[in-house]
Amino acid sequence: MGTARVVFDRWHDRYAERLAGVRSSAVRDLFAAASRPDMISLSGGMPAVGLVPHDAVAAAARDAVHHEGAAALQYGSSDGRPEIRALITELMAEIGVRLQPSDLLVTAGAQQGLDLLAKTFVDPGDIIICEGPTYVGALQAFSAYQPDIRCVPMDDDGMRMDLLEELLLELGPRGAKFIYTIPNFQNPAGVTMSPERRRRLLELAHEYDIPVVEDDPYGRLRFEGGHMKPLRALDDEVIYLGTFSKIFAPGLRLGWVTAPRPILAKILLVKQAADLCGSNFAQVTAERYFKGTRWRRVLQKLTTTYAERRDAMIAALEEHFPAEARWTKPDGGFFVWVELPKFVDCNAMLAEAVERGVTYAPGDGFYPDGRGKNCMRLAFCYAEPSAINEGIRRLAEVIEDRLELYRAFIAAGALREEEEGAA
Amino acid sequence: MGTARVVFDRWHDRYAERLAGVRSSAVRDLFAAASRPDMISLSGGMPAVGLVPHDAVAAAARDAVHHEGAAALQYGSSDGRPEIRALITELMAEIGVRLQPSDLLVTAGAQQGLDLLAKTFVDPGDIIICEGPTYVGALQAFSAYQPDIRCVPMDDDGMRMDLLEELLLELGPRGAKFIYTIPNFQNPAGVTMSPERRRRLLELAHEYDIPVVEDDPYGRLRFEGGHMKPLRALDDEVIYLGTFSKIFAPGLRLGWVTAPRPILAKILLVKQAADLCGSNFAQVTAERYFKGTRWRRVLQKLTTTYAERRDAMIAALEEHFPAEARWTKPDGGFFVWVELPKFVDCNAMLAEAVERGVTYAPGDGFYPDGRGKNCMRLAFCYAEPSAINEGIRRLAEVIEDRLELYRAFIAAGALREEEEGAA
Repeated sequence: MGTARVVFDRWHDRYAERLAGVRSSAVRDLFAAASRPDMISLSGGMPAVGLVPHDAVAAAARDAVHHEGAAALQYGSSDGRPEIRALITELMAEIGVRLQPSDLLVTAGAQQGLDLLAKTFVDPGDIIICEGPTYVGALQAFSAYQPDIRCVPMDDDGMRMDLLEELLLELGPRGAKFIYTIPNFQNPAGVTMSPERRRRLLELAHEYDIPVVEDDPYGRLRFEGGHMKPLRALDDEVIYLGTFSKIFAPGLRLGWVTAPRPILAKILLVKQAADLCGSNFAQVTAERYFKGTRWRRVLQKLTTTYAERRDAMIAALEEHFPAEARWTKPDGGFFVWVELPKFVDCNAMLAEAVERGVTYAPGDGFYPDGRGKNCMRLAFCYAEPSAINEGIRRLAEVIEDRLELYRAFIAAGALREEEEGAA
Repeated sequence: MGTARVVFDRWHDRYAERLAGVRSSAVRDLFAAASRPDMISLSGGMPAVGLVPHDAVAAAARDAVHHEGAAALQYGSSDGRPEIRALITELMAEIGVRLQPSDLLVTAGAQQGLDLLAKTFVDPGDIIICEGPTYVGALQAFSAYQPDIRCVPMDDDGMRMDLLEELLLELGPRGAKFIYTIPNFQNPAGVTMSPERRRRLLELAHEYDIPVVEDDPYGRLRFEGGHMKPLRALDDEVIYLGTFSKIFAPGLRLGWVTAPRPILAKILLVKQAADLCGSNFAQVTAERYFKGTRWRRVLQKLTTTYAERRDAMIAALEEHFPAEARWTKPDGGFFVWVELPKFVDCNAMLAEAVERGVTYAPGDGFYPDGRGKNCMRLAFCYAEPSAINEGIRRLAEVIEDRLELYRAFIAAGALREEEEGAA
């Protein structure tokens, strides 16, 4: 019913105060637009699930239900089946993190982990420290608990530790509820935190006695360069969020959170209240899918595919984008972050881009405070190389139109003030 | 690691204030105890999923992945696939509720619906009106948002409207965020709200301008007597929670919430923040399972099985339980509510019952305020008739021990004061 949006909401004054801070994700809203057949989606972080062999998943589901029987269909334990928790400890060991199954619990994707963490730690007005820009879904999840979110800028080596230290000095010991970071192929910036910065972050976190939350959805999708140890491998007290969404499929909604036992016990309580337990049906299917070695070949194929698409995007940016634009060059993951001249409003420009058949994620969605308007996140994970090239070409035209318009204004002396105001 | 519970929690002063109100569910904790092979579980509300044909589920999952392909594995829309929402509108039409697919969204079981509703409406200190006793999972979900929960007593016809009216008069118009009710085969009381009371509830809700939340997991599990129209069938503004857990299987974690469009839009925002979207994989499987008519025969078999188990439990209670005990006689659903003399503490007695090989759910878990200590919820859904009879026999022995002890105290004149104090 297309008229739903204009219906008067007679309950408008009944909602909880927290809703004032919860915005719809522009990125999520764009998933709908991206489903038009002529549209090239560079917006959503949707994995290339077409590369996951459907027959393997169908067989895993069928075998799981046959072998597990009623257990696949019944309520489960709130922390997840012992079998999938054992599987996760094996996956974590491969990236240098040694765990017991009781050190983690299974969540409905890493997104539920973000929600549960904020619910566990955050009272209204509490401070959370994030990278700026940061994952829009984390901002959404956190915002429902009315925090005061502070962003620390990044450079090519990730979160800037000098600026983090400045902020911590201002806030004092225990001055924030946690520091949230995506060290590998950051969403949306695409940059990776250097080993030196990882060590420094942990030092600072201990010095100021603030828990670190490490969100690592893309860690295993590295295209080149050496594997870097997760923060959790360097420090047992780091809270780590993992997910099956990028190494298997997001449609099962399976992720996990590891945390020191006392914190994990609190998260478990909060999870029971939120959904009683996760899906045994999804868990048994994942357990089967990860038996044997086929999943490793699939993950390798996913990684090389994303690497090709990253290459296609970087090449297209170099070919088509104007000299005024700057962008990051990720060693893995899904995203490139583009910065345009200050006067370009990527939110306002999106409708034009959609009209020309390409979508991107406007940058201000990745900040809690309206910054990032002249930036955009481009996802290279979903479209094929030729589509990526065409999408970047279309997008460059849209940007070029804007630049020409503004160059004309500048030539007329009309824009200097606004440009400086925005700088 | 058995020592985890005694580890000092150095984060104990960091958690959000809301955690003070979130208790672990005694019922959930008992699921673990109930898994001992010699144990007869009369505690958990676990459906008889052994009656759901595993081959049908395995085939549904396999076919769904084959036919839907990448869609089954990808992120989905936050309100659920159009196909499953269309299926839900058909199921709702069968119980007299006419809906468009856009009148509802899919949740991770009805439990997520409870969480999202409280998150949407409740600020700390806001009043919620429930039946007393009420579903422990609702109390858990609501408590995380720090409400002031008021309980309205029931009799054999459900929530007492005279007492509800008294409370509403005290609170005034818009004096509560919502009225939460389980009209059919209430959990834990087993009673059903009469048609007269349903109409009166809706009148009062309109008079005092307070939304009604109808939780209806058991509505289709009626053993005898006529079908009663859901509140939602009588009033479009009722918020209705449904679930696949009892008509199919809880292991897929699929439920739904219908609400007036403006409220639904808010719930959708809150859901995006909580988990991005539900499981497409579970949704496509459910869509396949509900094609054709086999599911109807399974539901019929489930219903007759639960009816036999209800009969076995009532007969066993009449045979074994002491004259001092009273219990409800449900026309459907999963639960019987037992009231024992005031001096019996069903929490303290539980360890003895577990030792004798039977579990139940102590009554105070179903109240927000410590009432119900002399009550218990008995679930007849899970155990077979012979096990139910044996379980009730064991439980009667435990109760008889308590009664004898207290009868001796009373004979010695030692208990009169305490007994009256508890009355």
